[in-house]
Amino acid sequence: MTIPSYNLPQTNRRVLLAERPTGIPQPADFRIDAAEVPAIGEGRMLVRNIYLSVDPAQRGWAQAATNYAQPVPLGTPMRALAVGVVVESRAEGFAAGDFLYGWFHWQDYCVAEPGQVICRVDPARAPLSTGAGLFGINGLTAYLALTQAGEPRAGDVLLVSTAAGAVGSLVGQIGKILGCRTIGITGSAEKVARCRERFGYDEAFSYRDSDLDALIAGVGGVDVYFDNTGGRILDTAIRHLRGGGRIVQCGTASIASWDPAPQGPRLEREVLMRELTWRGFVIFNHAERFAAAADQLGLWLREGRLTYDEDISDDFAVLPGAIAELYEGRNQGKRLIYVGG
Amino acid sequence: MTIPSYNLPQTNRRVLLAERPTGIPQPADFRIDAAEVPAIGEGRMLVRNIYLSVDPAQRGWAQAATNYAQPVPLGTPMRALAVGVVVESRAEGFAAGDFLYGWFHWQDYCVAEPGQVICRVDPARAPLSTGAGLFGINGLTAYLALTQAGEPRAGDVLLVSTAAGAVGSLVGQIGKILGCRTIGITGSAEKVARCRERFGYDEAFSYRDSDLDALIAGVGGVDVYFDNTGGRILDTAIRHLRGGGRIVQCGTASIASWDPAPQGPRLEREVLMRELTWRGFVIFNHAERFAAAADQLGLWLREGRLTYDEDISDDFAVLPGAIAELYEGRNQGKRLIYVGG
Repeated sequence: MTIPSYNLPQTNRRVLLAERPTGIPQPADFRIDAAEVPAIGEGRMLVRNIYLSVDPAQRGWAQAATNYAQPVPLGTPMRALAVGVVVESRAEGFAAGDFLYGWFHWQDYCVAEPGQVICRVDPARAPLSTGAGLFGINGLTAYLALTQAGEPRAGDVLLVSTAAGAVGSLVGQIGKILGCRTIGITGSAEKVARCRERFGYDEAFSYRDSDLDALIAGVGGVDVYFDNTGGRILDTAIRHLRGGGRIVQCGTASIASWDPAPQGPRLEREVLMRELTWRGFVIFNHAERFAAAADQLGLWLREGRLTYDEDISDDFAVLPGAIAELYEGRNQGKRLIYVGG
Repeated sequence: MTIPSYNLPQTNRRVLLAERPTGIPQPADFRIDAAEVPAIGEGRMLVRNIYLSVDPAQRGWAQAATNYAQPVPLGTPMRALAVGVVVESRAEGFAAGDFLYGWFHWQDYCVAEPGQVICRVDPARAPLSTGAGLFGINGLTAYLALTQAGEPRAGDVLLVSTAAGAVGSLVGQIGKILGCRTIGITGSAEKVARCRERFGYDEAFSYRDSDLDALIAGVGGVDVYFDNTGGRILDTAIRHLRGGGRIVQCGTASIASWDPAPQGPRLEREVLMRELTWRGFVIFNHAERFAAAADQLGLWLREGRLTYDEDISDDFAVLPGAIAELYEGRNQGKRLIYVGG
């Protein structure tokens, strides 16, 4: 195995959060600059980023409203996950040449403490980019949220929103491996086709179709609803859950702002009458299961049972608009920006 | 032990559902008549009712909207639970003198099949009336919903709505036995005092107070919210649940009608961010646990660790207004109508 080498530019390009967005972050909320390559102090390391990740959760990190993380301070690099390689280390346990996945943000270089590392990336297992997708929070979320919170059983009907997305496409495939009948909801005819042909969904349809309720009703009952959207799709799906059904609340992508909380039909009677279990899942609370989950995903990948799509750009200038494009559904797989060239 | 004897009147008074209510059933929705005492066929028995139960769930049974039970047909006795004694039996396994709890409806006599029986009532264990309260669906719900769906742990903070009611007053006491700090929400200063003094709540307050949010915030975090009301109290309570908190959805008493579903603030972000588990509980799905639950309740009762209040009338004429009075909170404990005299 040869470790690829990466350019080590003389400046550090950074995408700074310039304005506090109230809804989905837009290009004008960011500013690109070029700073000096920082020096590292004791206990830290210099990470050269290779793949910068674009994730729906970045919307929440950029906003001021209380979230499961403190908001990104204005004037600092946009919080982001990335795969990078250690260039220089004064941190115990880390050495130059180590490939890592962690909180390295939207920039070329990151001065990182060990606490910013989520896991090591094995460049022999799969392309490095998978460290930020299949083996990153997307794949870990798909596997752990579905199995821990959704409790799927063989024969269950599994309904997935954002079914062609970086998380949803894996949820559908994992559900299928576990013996579920899988139904995908996505946002275009092209993605419907991708759900069926690439991700093995038994059925798929677009939520933009006028009668989403009739489409879900046609499924004939749902046991597990894996929800990445909230909103109208949730309101519709919940009515078709069978007795004892489970909802995994993994995201709320359809709601642009929670300040104030938007109104919707009350759902407590749905929960009551059919004894539903509705659970939230935040991946960062489950770090103790990451290694085992990645091992399982790696096994399925080697067996040829998992497919993943990546949508990789090498244009740093697209980053300020990348979150908004994600919410518009314009990506064709896990969205990554390659900065290692 | 002597089995008390009950009058065997020559006619069968019945409370018939005359109109289909859209909200809470009102006196005008019912009609009282007196029919002949029915004869029984093979496989059936004649039950002389003694205590007729008044339950919040009767609202749903009377309405036309799909519920977890088929609506009561117009012109038939209002569906109700009752404690009665077998007068004559042609059903295997049942004999005259057996005390039973089951679906015997609002009338003096019921021709019952064995499938209508929920359980036998042991007149030596406690007063017969407890067969329709503490050992009936109220106590069984309190115990099973809390332990199965709420998963309380010693040291947890347990918040209970309708805390002085037939279910809630037992939930608070059972939570206390299990080591929880118990907080009751109820509807009047008198009930607040009863929660604290009779049912052992550590704290209690009235939801009619203007700043319910500040009152719940003062608790300092909730682990389990046992919800009998839904609506505004739920919307407020859910914001104070800690990470990993549980909501037991046991009733939706504050919502007068679900057709159409009323609007409220969207709650999926609350579920997501703090990884809540929100579960519905319908007692009739848990019959296999009734006997063990009743044994546990009986043990605690003998140990003097459980208190229950009953509000018993012997006036048959109050039945048509009894559900509405329950929703107005006018009862002072488990509401029963004694018809055995």
